[in-house]
Amino acid sequence: MISQKEYKRRRLNVAKTLKANSVAVLLSATPKTRSNDTEYPYRQNSNFYYLSGFKEDNAALVIVRELRTYKVYLFVAKKDEAVELWTGKRVGAKKAKEQFLVDDVYEYQELEAKLKEFSEGKNQLYYDFSLESSEVDVLKKATKNVTTHSDISTSVQLLRAIKSEAEIAIIKKALSITQEAHHTAMQKAKSLHYEYELQAEIEYVFKKSGAYSDAYTSIVASANAANTLHYVSNTQALQKESLILIDAGCEYAYYASDITRTIPASGKFTEAQKELYEMVLSVEKKIIKMIEPNMLRSELQKKSEELLCEGMVRLGILKGSVKKLLKEKAHKKYYPHGIGHWMGLDVHDECPYKDAKGKEIPLKAGMVMTIEPGIYLDAADEKIPKKYRGIGIRIEDDILVTKNGYENLSEGIIKEVAQIEQMSHSSL
Amino acid sequence: MISQKEYKRRRLNVAKTLKANSVAVLLSATPKTRSNDTEYPYRQNSNFYYLSGFKEDNAALVIVRELRTYKVYLFVAKKDEAVELWTGKRVGAKKAKEQFLVDDVYEYQELEAKLKEFSEGKNQLYYDFSLESSEVDVLKKATKNVTTHSDISTSVQLLRAIKSEAEIAIIKKALSITQEAHHTAMQKAKSLHYEYELQAEIEYVFKKSGAYSDAYTSIVASANAANTLHYVSNTQALQKESLILIDAGCEYAYYASDITRTIPASGKFTEAQKELYEMVLSVEKKIIKMIEPNMLRSELQKKSEELLCEGMVRLGILKGSVKKLLKEKAHKKYYPHGIGHWMGLDVHDECPYKDAKGKEIPLKAGMVMTIEPGIYLDAADEKIPKKYRGIGIRIEDDILVTKNGYENLSEGIIKEVAQIEQMSHSSL
Amino acid sequence: MISQKEYKRRRLNVAKTLKANSVAVLLSATPKTRSNDTEYPYRQNSNFYYLSGFKEDNAALVIVRELRTYKVYLFVAKKDEAVELWTGKRVGAKKAKEQFLVDDVYEYQELEAKLKEFSEGKNQLYYDFSLESSEVDVLKKATKNVTTHSDISTSVQLLRAIKSEAEIAIIKKALSITQEAHHTAMQKAKSLHYEYELQAEIEYVFKKSGAYSDAYTSIVASANAANTLHYVSNTQALQKESLILIDAGCEYAYYASDITRTIPASGKFTEAQKELYEMVLSVEKKIIKMIEPNMLRSELQKKSEELLCEGMVRLGILKGSVKKLLKEKAHKKYYPHGIGHWMGLDVHDECPYKDAKGKEIPLKAGMVMTIEPGIYLDAADEKIPKKYRGIGIRIEDDILVTKNGYENLSEGIIKEVAQIEQMSHSSL
Amino acid sequence: MISQKEYKRRRLNVAKTLKANSVAVLLSATPKTRSNDTEYPYRQNSNFYYLSGFKEDNAALVIVRELRTYKVYLFVAKKDEAVELWTGKRVGAKKAKEQFLVDDVYEYQELEAKLKEFSEGKNQLYYDFSLESSEVDVLKKATKNVTTHSDISTSVQLLRAIKSEAEIAIIKKALSITQEAHHTAMQKAKSLHYEYELQAEIEYVFKKSGAYSDAYTSIVASANAANTLHYVSNTQALQKESLILIDAGCEYAYYASDITRTIPASGKFTEAQKELYEMVLSVEKKIIKMIEPNMLRSELQKKSEELLCEGMVRLGILKGSVKKLLKEKAHKKYYPHGIGHWMGLDVHDECPYKDAKGKEIPLKAGMVMTIEPGIYLDAADEKIPKKYRGIGIRIEDDILVTKNGYENLSEGIIKEVAQIEQMSHSSL
Repeated sequence: MISQKEYKRRRLNVAKTLKANSVAVLLSATPKTRSNDTEYPYRQNSNFYYLSGFKEDNAALVIVRELRTYKVYLFVAKKDEAVELWTGKRVGAKKAKEQFLVDDVYEYQELEAKLKEFSEGKNQLYYDFSLESSEVDVLKKATKNVTTHSDISTSVQLLRAIKSEAEIAIIKKALSITQEAHHTAMQKAKSLHYEYELQAEIEYVFKKSGAYSDAYTSIVASANAANTLHYVSNTQALQKESLILIDAGCEYAYYASDITRTIPASGKFTEAQKELYEMVLSVEKKIIKMIEPNMLRSELQKKSEELLCEGMVRLGILKGSVKKLLKEKAHKKYYPHGIGHWMGLDVHDECPYKDAKGKEIPLKAGMVMTIEPGIYLDAADEKIPKKYRGIGIRIEDDILVTKNGYENLSEGIIKEVAQIEQMSHSSL
Repeated sequence: MISQKEYKRRRLNVAKTLKANSVAVLLSATPKTRSNDTEYPYRQNSNFYYLSGFKEDNAALVIVRELRTYKVYLFVAKKDEAVELWTGKRVGAKKAKEQFLVDDVYEYQELEAKLKEFSEGKNQLYYDFSLESSEVDVLKKATKNVTTHSDISTSVQLLRAIKSEAEIAIIKKALSITQEAHHTAMQKAKSLHYEYELQAEIEYVFKKSGAYSDAYTSIVASANAANTLHYVSNTQALQKESLILIDAGCEYAYYASDITRTIPASGKFTEAQKELYEMVLSVEKKIIKMIEPNMLRSELQKKSEELLCEGMVRLGILKGSVKKLLKEKAHKKYYPHGIGHWMGLDVHDECPYKDAKGKEIPLKAGMVMTIEPGIYLDAADEKIPKKYRGIGIRIEDDILVTKNGYENLSEGIIKEVAQIEQMSHSSL
Repeated sequence: MISQKEYKRRRLNVAKTLKANSVAVLLSATPKTRSNDTEYPYRQNSNFYYLSGFKEDNAALVIVRELRTYKVYLFVAKKDEAVELWTGKRVGAKKAKEQFLVDDVYEYQELEAKLKEFSEGKNQLYYDFSLESSEVDVLKKATKNVTTHSDISTSVQLLRAIKSEAEIAIIKKALSITQEAHHTAMQKAKSLHYEYELQAEIEYVFKKSGAYSDAYTSIVASANAANTLHYVSNTQALQKESLILIDAGCEYAYYASDITRTIPASGKFTEAQKELYEMVLSVEKKIIKMIEPNMLRSELQKKSEELLCEGMVRLGILKGSVKKLLKEKAHKKYYPHGIGHWMGLDVHDECPYKDAKGKEIPLKAGMVMTIEPGIYLDAADEKIPKKYRGIGIRIEDDILVTKNGYENLSEGIIKEVAQIEQMSHSSL
Repeated sequence: MISQKEYKRRRLNVAKTLKANSVAVLLSATPKTRSNDTEYPYRQNSNFYYLSGFKEDNAALVIVRELRTYKVYLFVAKKDEAVELWTGKRVGAKKAKEQFLVDDVYEYQELEAKLKEFSEGKNQLYYDFSLESSEVDVLKKATKNVTTHSDISTSVQLLRAIKSEAEIAIIKKALSITQEAHHTAMQKAKSLHYEYELQAEIEYVFKKSGAYSDAYTSIVASANAANTLHYVSNTQALQKESLILIDAGCEYAYYASDITRTIPASGKFTEAQKELYEMVLSVEKKIIKMIEPNMLRSELQKKSEELLCEGMVRLGILKGSVKKLLKEKAHKKYYPHGIGHWMGLDVHDECPYKDAKGKEIPLKAGMVMTIEPGIYLDAADEKIPKKYRGIGIRIEDDILVTKNGYENLSEGIIKEVAQIEQMSHSSL
């Protein structure tokens, strides 16, 4: 997928952002315990993976930046038959040196000693500021003479923001799987009885298609549960008259997809549901159309708030002048979240929204961003027209900023009322 | 499932093991990060759950043991609408007090202050010794005058070892789901092309049946991969002539199941595969039959090693006198693991195998134990008859020790050669 | 001073308090940085020293308690010529084994490995609960299977409370040096101009007599500074009309002395000063006379409060009925501290005042306790008769509880008004 | 001594070295425990003191650097009568604001909240990289958005290297006290019997003169003990035929002095002692004469090694060609240390010897440096002429680099053989 040459190019791009006479260290993720001695499925650290393509734990990538040149060293777990019998085969230093285009490969237990060597005469150390204290202490101890530390994340995340063609291809692949999953959900909802059954259908499509994990815990929120933004228990019985908000996307080859659709449990929207749904859908489409290079995310946000506020007034959910309501942030109660976020190796790619001087970073070709307006009307809110109470709707697509505008990477995933209702009837 | 009365009885049983004038603290599990700001699905700490039945994080259970009486306090996350909008509804202290049979319920942020109060004049503090240093520091700071600390895990685990009827019922439910999953795998293997497709089928059955998670990462190891004991990548193409070792079990209502079956990818065992399989199966059955109260796990281990060693000699895998081979531990190369482990809230229930004096704890009615003999013949091992190379077989069932013997809780999951081959043909 | 046999007896006494099948670890103190790369003079940890007599850092004492026997191991810093050239000679394991009556001596870097070995099959670990987290983590890691931890300090402190003859002899030696220091101060005060000059005289006597350190930072508080209990800056000019409160005692061979005298800067008490001084002195003497086995420290406290309250009423400092004033704790404003504390290897020997059941521990023969009533009348307190304002007085002696009563170990240090005034005139 | 204006100028000079949009935090030193609940005399952190002149603990100095301006905030311990009664008066925020020329003064417990405020929109955080992890964690938590951390020590130490006239005046005052101390030692040695008695005399002079502490633990090393470089036990009996190496200097108003003299215990050098002493003295004088701006410390080192090596050959301690011996570093065995170090607020002022590019920093006017050649001839070294065995000699002065050369700040402390012998006879 991502070629070794591309990983090398990425490292070059990071090396360029490093000050002369510096050392950058990226560590693999630590395995996480689920309960007692069982672990969750291992997920590599995104920044480390972005620059190395290396999948195992107990690994590190070190970039040593000289005045005009740089060297890259990979540290990998030792091969040890007795250990591998139990916990799986390791690539090992020898084979890693053949496969990865780095200057040298060492065993992980050599990291501290090698860092001492590499950091001699260096002025700056880069590492991930979100590392645990104990990990930082090891790095600091090994690089005692270095008097400036910088967060490597910032540099890497700015690079990660702009996707290459190879990356877009992977995200499209992830979205094609997520598309099948959402369409399956639309087809099956009518015949199922619990939220978790829908979740099972969706994640079955993910896994059998080679997407070993969801990119984030799937939300299958029926009826009023949709008004809890990160509802993940998925344990309620489906009520035939209600909507189901499904926010689910697979991770494929380390890249995320992030899609929300809101569908009728019965296969058919009620009038009230349709009114709200069409309103949100129309906002979503309008915002997507605004996307192009140099557009500001804050403009998209502002526009989405205006459009949703207008819609709420039109439908009688809010009362009064739109202008005044916006000023008082009255609409925030029903649309409390952001219009979208960057997406890539992480579902929430961490690219900052502002540069070092505090100026907002505008959209650029190659960025991928979600657009996800929503409306959340609590069942217990007596200020809302009765027919709308207990309805939560969000519609979310993944959009690539292109040179001249945008490409909706998830346009294959249906979202028109008629399409959804038809899909429901085409079920097995 | 587990009634509030049963949780109360469990707490009473733990309280009895505590010294007079002591305080015991159990903390909920900490949510674990998967990548950047996404978390793995939350899993409650088993000991905390065993004694509280409480599912949320940011919670604690405190047992204050006086001379002859004890009190139980639950600490739960604060209700906060603004937070709950995002991360889900909380039970809250008020409702928890109605639902849980404890002496009082407080908000979690009061824990430190309350512990100060509770620990006044107390001599002993119990907590989980595997807690992180930072968590321990909080407990120590709040209980400064207490001069003895004990690991609460030991007491709880000894109680957890003996299952109640309600617990057995849940494990049976978990196994009925796992049964469907393994049978589905047997039916579908022939028509699938990758290990992960089989994993998808199995986990689909889990999830749609309400088992929200596997109890441990599923192993679907085809051909020589079976010889890596914890092979979890599941990325290989299935080879039609090879066996597939599937070690997978769901977690249902916090209880584990743990089943291994080894099946032919083609639906039919070859002669060589059958020879090995029958040998292992016969060992497994014999060991299961030995199970009864007062039996020692070490005897089961010893017997399984003898029987497998005999089998290996019979099949020409080892050469020489069985007695001598056993003494030299020659068989360990091909059967390097234990005969089984306790199972319950954790797939590896942590009940110690020896008591405080170092004496082995014998089997008792109410214990659940896996029996899982295996044989692992590496493809590259030239000492083995050629026809057997690259074959790994393990057969594992979950056995309840009963008053008079045992009950195979997973006896519904087929394991005879003929049954497996027939199941393959009955596929959709 | 303290013979190797006595150290051995102490260890036996501690070993008796340990549970069967346990391991106790005591660590030497960590050297403390004063500024940049300079350290304060090293002071051994009192508990470690009490049981080992070993003076160097990077050392540990381990007691392994079996069912009926115990073994003692000393861990000492490695001998290394290159290091010793810079930081001083080390005893080393070989010589330590000859000098110390322990079962074996190892190098300190072996501690973790040896603890693993020692703790196998053990149920309880004892260590000092005031150790730093990082030190505790090492001990816990090395003794993973041990499920109960107890604070060794409690056991050791209870033993330390009762002094042997050899210990009393050392404390007397310390007090003879402190006596010379206080008498020198009395002689020189008249001719000096700053508090720190008096401090210099006192500490000069300490050091030239082989008492390498004060047992606590010397307090030389003239005039109103005496009303700050732990005034240690000692920078003021002496005012001829004022009193000087001197609380200073040397440490000799690791044992403390703790003496307060209050003297006139001019060599002569004023009338008002004398009135107050005589009152406090009379209280001090009465309390000392009460000391005998089975007396409670709380009774001494109560009596000292009564006597001082009466005195204050008599002198017009408090007004009203003594009984009522005591009930309202009105006297606490002018006598806010305790009547005294245990003394030994630490100036505040940490022996608890209550036993495990919360019952007060009575005085026992062999205990050493300070008696130190005082009165503190702030210069700005307008409720006090003018002539008394700005006067702070404390008189403190070190008392040994004997079989039949007490011995004032510091009775050689003069405290009568006439004696002090005469001593002043006998100055060089 | 140091005026508030000078502290302000120092802060300006540091602020100039900070990057625009940054925050620098300096913390007061943490009090250090000596034993149980007693503390060593508190010593302020040198960098914090250099920039604030503030003497109390629980304090911080924050410099907020904007594009072209900066602000300085002092954080001080809260005034609290109940606490101050026990542990001494505090300046408090109100009075500190009057006394210190800073933009504002806050209470220390506000530090975290204020840092959050100050660090908003800032890119760089400066703090002392030698802080403890727990302190760093607080700073990091309060400044989460800041992505570069630099060690403030480097900037401050470079400024500290160049002393102002006011600083030189204080160092001269410290040296005048140290002079009296060394001369007293010379006068008294003959009549004393233990090393610690000499130490007592020296430190008595320090303390009575207002120098509340030694700048480093005094070394009084008689006979062969002089060959342990940092011998600090000072417990040996003085042997009349031997030399005594005294390395002792007081700290006065936070500034160090650092002087070594080597004197005969009897008051008279033996012939052999004199030969060695004259040789070392002549080297010391020659090296001192080399001092001037732009001289390199490495040149002084090299020259001292050459001269000492020549001397050793001349006296028969080494044999062979000086050139060859130097190349083989044979002389290092007897002269293993450096020629001297920077001195100021710390006895070892931490100014780096090389700049950020690794180029050696040459001497500059205003620097203060020790010059301290020595020779150490172990009693057990059979390669050395017998008469010299067991002799250790070091002679050390404190030199100010001036515009045109140097000023020996300690020239008043005698070091000629005849002077020392005469001083001995002039004793009381």
